[in-house]
Amino acid sequence: MPLTTTAEAIRSMEIRGAGRIARAAAGALRDHAEMISTDNFTGFRDGMYQAADLLRSTRPTAVSLPNAIHIVMRDLRTATDATDARNGIIRNAEAFIRSSEAAVRTIGMIGANQIRDGDTILTHCNSEAALACIIEAKKQGKEIEVFATEVRPWNQGRLTIEVLNHHEIPTHFIVDSAVRSFINDVDLAIAGADAISADGSVINKIGTSQIALAAHEARTKMIIAAETYKFAPLSSIGLEIPVEERPGSEVLADEIAQKYPFVRVRNPVFDRTPGTYIDLIVTEEGVIPPEYAPLIIREHLGWRVSDLDSHLFGT
Amino acid sequence: MPLTTTAEAIRSMEIRGAGRIARAAAGALRDHAEMISTDNFTGFRDGMYQAADLLRSTRPTAVSLPNAIHIVMRDLRTATDATDARNGIIRNAEAFIRSSEAAVRTIGMIGANQIRDGDTILTHCNSEAALACIIEAKKQGKEIEVFATEVRPWNQGRLTIEVLNHHEIPTHFIVDSAVRSFINDVDLAIAGADAISADGSVINKIGTSQIALAAHEARTKMIIAAETYKFAPLSSIGLEIPVEERPGSEVLADEIAQKYPFVRVRNPVFDRTPGTYIDLIVTEEGVIPPEYAPLIIREHLGWRVSDLDSHLFGT
Amino acid sequence: MPLTTTAEAIRSMEIRGAGRIARAAAGALRDHAEMISTDNFTGFRDGMYQAADLLRSTRPTAVSLPNAIHIVMRDLRTATDATDARNGIIRNAEAFIRSSEAAVRTIGMIGANQIRDGDTILTHCNSEAALACIIEAKKQGKEIEVFATEVRPWNQGRLTIEVLNHHEIPTHFIVDSAVRSFINDVDLAIAGADAISADGSVINKIGTSQIALAAHEARTKMIIAAETYKFAPLSSIGLEIPVEERPGSEVLADEIAQKYPFVRVRNPVFDRTPGTYIDLIVTEEGVIPPEYAPLIIREHLGWRVSDLDSHLFGT
Amino acid sequence: MPLTTTAEAIRSMEIRGAGRIARAAAGALRDHAEMISTDNFTGFRDGMYQAADLLRSTRPTAVSLPNAIHIVMRDLRTATDATDARNGIIRNAEAFIRSSEAAVRTIGMIGANQIRDGDTILTHCNSEAALACIIEAKKQGKEIEVFATEVRPWNQGRLTIEVLNHHEIPTHFIVDSAVRSFINDVDLAIAGADAISADGSVINKIGTSQIALAAHEARTKMIIAAETYKFAPLSSIGLEIPVEERPGSEVLADEIAQKYPFVRVRNPVFDRTPGTYIDLIVTEEGVIPPEYAPLIIREHLGWRVSDLDSHLFGT
Amino acid sequence: MPLTTTAEAIRSMEIRGAGRIARAAAGALRDHAEMISTDNFTGFRDGMYQAADLLRSTRPTAVSLPNAIHIVMRDLRTATDATDARNGIIRNAEAFIRSSEAAVRTIGMIGANQIRDGDTILTHCNSEAALACIIEAKKQGKEIEVFATEVRPWNQGRLTIEVLNHHEIPTHFIVDSAVRSFINDVDLAIAGADAISADGSVINKIGTSQIALAAHEARTKMIIAAETYKFAPLSSIGLEIPVEERPGSEVLADEIAQKYPFVRVRNPVFDRTPGTYIDLIVTEEGVIPPEYAPLIIREHLGWRVSDLDSHLFGT
Amino acid sequence: MPLTTTAEAIRSMEIRGAGRIARAAAGALRDHAEMISTDNFTGFRDGMYQAADLLRSTRPTAVSLPNAIHIVMRDLRTATDATDARNGIIRNAEAFIRSSEAAVRTIGMIGANQIRDGDTILTHCNSEAALACIIEAKKQGKEIEVFATEVRPWNQGRLTIEVLNHHEIPTHFIVDSAVRSFINDVDLAIAGADAISADGSVINKIGTSQIALAAHEARTKMIIAAETYKFAPLSSIGLEIPVEERPGSEVLADEIAQKYPFVRVRNPVFDRTPGTYIDLIVTEEGVIPPEYAPLIIREHLGWRVSDLDSHLFGT
Repeated sequence: MPLTTTAEAIRSMEIRGAGRIARAAAGALRDHAEMISTDNFTGFRDGMYQAADLLRSTRPTAVSLPNAIHIVMRDLRTATDATDARNGIIRNAEAFIRSSEAAVRTIGMIGANQIRDGDTILTHCNSEAALACIIEAKKQGKEIEVFATEVRPWNQGRLTIEVLNHHEIPTHFIVDSAVRSFINDVDLAIAGADAISADGSVINKIGTSQIALAAHEARTKMIIAAETYKFAPLSSIGLEIPVEERPGSEVLADEIAQKYPFVRVRNPVFDRTPGTYIDLIVTEEGVIPPEYAPLIIREHLGWRVSDLDSHLFGT
Repeated sequence: MPLTTTAEAIRSMEIRGAGRIARAAAGALRDHAEMISTDNFTGFRDGMYQAADLLRSTRPTAVSLPNAIHIVMRDLRTATDATDARNGIIRNAEAFIRSSEAAVRTIGMIGANQIRDGDTILTHCNSEAALACIIEAKKQGKEIEVFATEVRPWNQGRLTIEVLNHHEIPTHFIVDSAVRSFINDVDLAIAGADAISADGSVINKIGTSQIALAAHEARTKMIIAAETYKFAPLSSIGLEIPVEERPGSEVLADEIAQKYPFVRVRNPVFDRTPGTYIDLIVTEEGVIPPEYAPLIIREHLGWRVSDLDSHLFGT
Repeated sequence: MPLTTTAEAIRSMEIRGAGRIARAAAGALRDHAEMISTDNFTGFRDGMYQAADLLRSTRPTAVSLPNAIHIVMRDLRTATDATDARNGIIRNAEAFIRSSEAAVRTIGMIGANQIRDGDTILTHCNSEAALACIIEAKKQGKEIEVFATEVRPWNQGRLTIEVLNHHEIPTHFIVDSAVRSFINDVDLAIAGADAISADGSVINKIGTSQIALAAHEARTKMIIAAETYKFAPLSSIGLEIPVEERPGSEVLADEIAQKYPFVRVRNPVFDRTPGTYIDLIVTEEGVIPPEYAPLIIREHLGWRVSDLDSHLFGT
Repeated sequence: MPLTTTAEAIRSMEIRGAGRIARAAAGALRDHAEMISTDNFTGFRDGMYQAADLLRSTRPTAVSLPNAIHIVMRDLRTATDATDARNGIIRNAEAFIRSSEAAVRTIGMIGANQIRDGDTILTHCNSEAALACIIEAKKQGKEIEVFATEVRPWNQGRLTIEVLNHHEIPTHFIVDSAVRSFINDVDLAIAGADAISADGSVINKIGTSQIALAAHEARTKMIIAAETYKFAPLSSIGLEIPVEERPGSEVLADEIAQKYPFVRVRNPVFDRTPGTYIDLIVTEEGVIPPEYAPLIIREHLGWRVSDLDSHLFGT
Repeated sequence: MPLTTTAEAIRSMEIRGAGRIARAAAGALRDHAEMISTDNFTGFRDGMYQAADLLRSTRPTAVSLPNAIHIVMRDLRTATDATDARNGIIRNAEAFIRSSEAAVRTIGMIGANQIRDGDTILTHCNSEAALACIIEAKKQGKEIEVFATEVRPWNQGRLTIEVLNHHEIPTHFIVDSAVRSFINDVDLAIAGADAISADGSVINKIGTSQIALAAHEARTKMIIAAETYKFAPLSSIGLEIPVEERPGSEVLADEIAQKYPFVRVRNPVFDRTPGTYIDLIVTEEGVIPPEYAPLIIREHLGWRVSDLDSHLFGT
Repeated sequence: MPLTTTAEAIRSMEIRGAGRIARAAAGALRDHAEMISTDNFTGFRDGMYQAADLLRSTRPTAVSLPNAIHIVMRDLRTATDATDARNGIIRNAEAFIRSSEAAVRTIGMIGANQIRDGDTILTHCNSEAALACIIEAKKQGKEIEVFATEVRPWNQGRLTIEVLNHHEIPTHFIVDSAVRSFINDVDLAIAGADAISADGSVINKIGTSQIALAAHEARTKMIIAAETYKFAPLSSIGLEIPVEERPGSEVLADEIAQKYPFVRVRNPVFDRTPGTYIDLIVTEEGVIPPEYAPLIIREHLGWRVSDLDSHLFGT
């Protein structure tokens, strides 16, 4: 798939979900590296940088995207030879894709340990990592039920019930507003993450923070399932993860909206859940409390404040 | 409009909103009384009782419906003459409709007093009484802004933005899941009520309790605007107001749903907000805290536990 | 039963539970009135006053006791003739006993309305009114389960499980410390009351407030079932209902305790639950929020602050 | 004292405290009625209305002022004769002053019942009613200690410690910011009220709501001591009690402030404490929860929404 | 003491408390190693593995048991010679016992620093580490008082008051239900831990979480005193620490229970306190917030998720 | 400036603020080292130790003081030669001063990232680090407004408004009691720290914890800006940071106070804010949640419990 096709597929939300976006970007960089046939290193490097810039611009919130690009491209800065650089990128991209898939499997196993036989689980949106936990629990023979939300405006809940139905997991499908009505029947809420901040707060699909609040009010356990590359290095220097606001037409068709000049559709795609409302985060490095986030950034992603000086003080 | 047409219009939610339903029922009883031409009292009475039963069965949650029927029909039990009974019903029905409309006006005036110049107000669903407060504030020349939710699955928010646009009130239209993201920008949340219980809890459109919870978390004032006939006499004897659950097809088209045998759509139409999350209720009898509810039932609606004995101990 | 026998049975907790104490006191006054054979009014009156004083002194917390005595003796102040006075007391006592029993029945019916088919209910201590709700729900054919606490130091939970077992209600018996571990499996907690204050707080068996707190934390409904004569008139003038502290030997046998000179056993029998943690109170006058308490004192018990002047300013 | 002197003394806060203001206004109206020597009724009435308007304008928040004026002037509307009207005003004014003083005494007795031997009490500002409770407890021989705040910007705490010192009550004097540091050592917080709203919220000296919040956080009891004429009838129709904002020079001397053109001093004199943070209100009509407020307005002050129509719909 | 005797003493709760259990297990392994006289390595190793399995099976919740066994046996996997292996086990066992005792001493010193002169401390159950803090504070000459709970059903509180009495510490003995009644008189609550999870939650004697909740409600500091070997490595891969449920006969004698066929005694021995309700944990490695738990598991106990692969994916 | 002059300036609060105190102490040690002209090492060392003791005694709470002294003097223990030791101290002192200033700059940049265009910020006292964030945001061209508190009893708020006015930042000046009244208009509260404990709690100017509580109640973000040398190593072994209580005359002039023998002025200078009420801490090492504190102490300040043995067990 040509780079621009992948970029457009991410931007238009054809490719969705932080993990899938990250792997698609890694694959696109690999393919792009293979496609740039030049032996001129500078030309190769500039081509790759442009590719990276294009991919990074598609979705502002999903931190998995720059994290993946950073990992795939990390040897380019010190490279001098086009062939070596190309091979490095291919190698890094494939390693990232493999480790990303392995991370989902490990998270699924750990998260399944949190699910008891007989549990009712609520999930929101269509998180690969969160669903891995639920499906693994089912595979282990646990009898479980799920509440899945509709997830306006993109209705990703329909993808979720398709997956759950495929795995023969009894599922209740509800509108987003109905979470508090059912939360006392839920033993465990599991959601994914698009980004996790150094302060332990979690950016995820709009509505997640309301679910976490309702779960907290009812003493229902709230778990986030997230690979370590969802943690946001720039949050360490105070840069808030930007919450993407998408076109209002996703919520209200333009032909209706234009009849109401005093009305403006607001369509933020994500919200922020404070760490206080999250019992624990399941990562491929194990169970952690949200407050452990700076250690993931420092030790697993390898960033320190001093590495971020250019972001802090400009070049 | 023939009685069955009104009943069907209420059942199918063509006529919506507790106040409108109550007035439609009163009007239908009046018209039905006029239509039953018999001079035979027993025949007249039985016809009216059947009409009342039909209307009562249309929507189980909206307590305004049995309250209105009770008020309109209250002289029938002691009547002996068909003509007198007919006239009494017509008189009561018209009085009820007038007082219901007056109540909305009074609530609008009182509620507008709670809105300050420059306020941003959030509303949910399409409540006549809540909108009356907002529109009156606008008429008084206050500069206000509104956040209006989409209100899945019936999207009543679209009616709300039409009304607000008509009154030239700048409005933000958001999905139900986005309330917590914007609540810190909101000065005041106003919703209506389908029923209010003797314990001070409020039954209203699904999602209201999540909004109240988010408002409470952010110290944002939460107001309920409700006519006194929204208070539920039977709640005084412990009978929970039943929450209507409507067909799943309102949420997910049957042709999709049937592909997923393990999935069941749950569609409760209302939820319960505890009095703790409500700052005050605006009624046509003035501002009250939710805990004042038993006094409304006793003094304004005229019910005591002893009147409800047949409900408590059977006949 | 002679008066002193009844008094001693109340003091030693052979007769327990605020309702049973009240009825036993009424019965004892009736019997005592019958027993004082004198025709001399002053002699009769003084004898009755002494009887009332003796009964009142047995348990300081249970407000049902002075409320019952007040009701039974209310005509004595204006009486002039021994026979009339005797008959008045007998009449009042029997009326009180009947209305107390009727109140429990009505509360049972109302409280049962709060219990849904399939509910799991937690109860604490051995409250006649609370059990009436549970048993009535069972009689109505609802499938229910109960958690009953042990209730140290008197282990009244053993009486409760005997009653529940008799009604064939599946019951879990747990130590008092285990409430929070199971509260997420509970739909509804129901307890009785020994006294209810004008501020809406409830005095009941030690441990009730911890249960209410745990229920509140888990969004589990907490109900108090209480006859109106449990409301404390003197709380209207700020007099806190005294919490009886009984002998330490009820908790730790004296022969053990005396080995530990640095240890003192503390044995308060009741605790105070703030109204905030109580969803509603079921009385024979209907469902009320705790904040409605001053109206019960004023309207159902008939006390105003001006009636309490002698308590406030001394004679 | 001439009316204008009294008005100025209230405006300049020489006369302070809602009760003292109310009595001063009643006295000023009485004196003014005596002073207007005309026998012409219209002249007398207009003079009195002007006097009332002047007094009402002095302090916008203290609802005791219009309540007192309303009570003193209540017969004027139906009067026809200057002498009768004058005598009526004098009689009403003196009755009001007497009942206001009696109310403080009754509140003191009731509030003292809430104070136990050995208690440590925190008070804020210089409330006559709150201090009456503390002083009465001391007079009853209870050993008590008090924490008194400084109360910026007017430092009314200095008046409070003078009073407490006079009654030989051991007192800690602290800055307003230190309340949370000491609240765990406090058994009971008592404050007065300038106005109480129909929703149960209390308007009192700036800082009261922070104290109530800190008390709530630490499970420390929070009591408001307030005469019934502190309840605000207009709050029943949604009119928020206006919070007076006084000159910045009370906080920062103008000669300093003018050096800082970018700085604006904000000086709101009162704040609003939600009923949730108040355990109970002590009035001369007894102990009530805050949610009982509409009954005080309706039954003790005699206002219904229908009486307030002119405020609601204009004349 | 033969291995089976120790195992039985642990199982029957003759040996109780996570630290004592761990040291007893270490001692039993040491003695067992000395007892197996064979020079055949495989025979020795298998004998030790059987011994370890037997010990591990005695109490499922106390993570100190497998942690201690793991430490004592850690060299066995790579050993090849029976004598070396035996010596290694003896050396490790003795080192563990010494370091466990030293840990209690260090925790006692650190915890005592948290206790101020004049403090009242509440403790629950009979925790060696928690009591070490209290006793050390007393030894330092601080005047302290203690509230000790009864701790149903095993009444370990009686052991606690024996210890406190021995150290001449004034102590109040209360039933478990009375904690909330006295918590406002308590400056500091200290409990031990049977296990601490990677998410910062603490498993301890049933009732601990209710105490922590009541302490949190009253802003009373809540401390856990725990050696680092109480932290549960398997919690890092999501395995919940199992809560042991012991025979109902510990709560209600079987001869009583069998009279009630509808009653089932539930006897969970521990409960889970969320980290949110714990101010800090005192370990021998210093004061930490609960959220620091994964670092103790990783750095002090030396476990990473990769070490736990066999637990996660099976062998 | 001679050492005693600096010490006195710190004690008298002429030099204020934890960072300024730390740098002043470092500078004073440097100057003192230069001033001690002796070549005798023992004499030099003893002189420096005396200087350190003098400085340490000036303010008990500000942990920056002993941290700075420790850093400046760290080579003295192993030194043997006066000249080398002197040079080491001079070098360390200057490095500390530079790194302290750099830390404030870095914190300013990171904190400014947390401030959005259009934000209203509340600050308390006169924290160098907190103001650096605000001023940097202004320099970046963000339109911001500030609420600054008066900060009784020293009125440091006046210094703060002077600085903010100088940077042309629109500022509201309010009394400390008014924070809760305005907090709903505030987007972000930023305060500094005098010390941060291993449990994540923050010691700062009296009033900070009330602000944090009010911010928490209103879901307003609360940030602490603090250099890493504000973290308190001794808190790791349970030693509470002592809260300095200064002379009552700072609050109430002695000539007034002495008129009130029953009144005692209490003047604690700092209070403790639990980590729960703090969203994040901005340090020069990046954004961290409060619970990360033990890692700062261990990794950035280099202290482990074993280093503190002499503090724990005595020498």
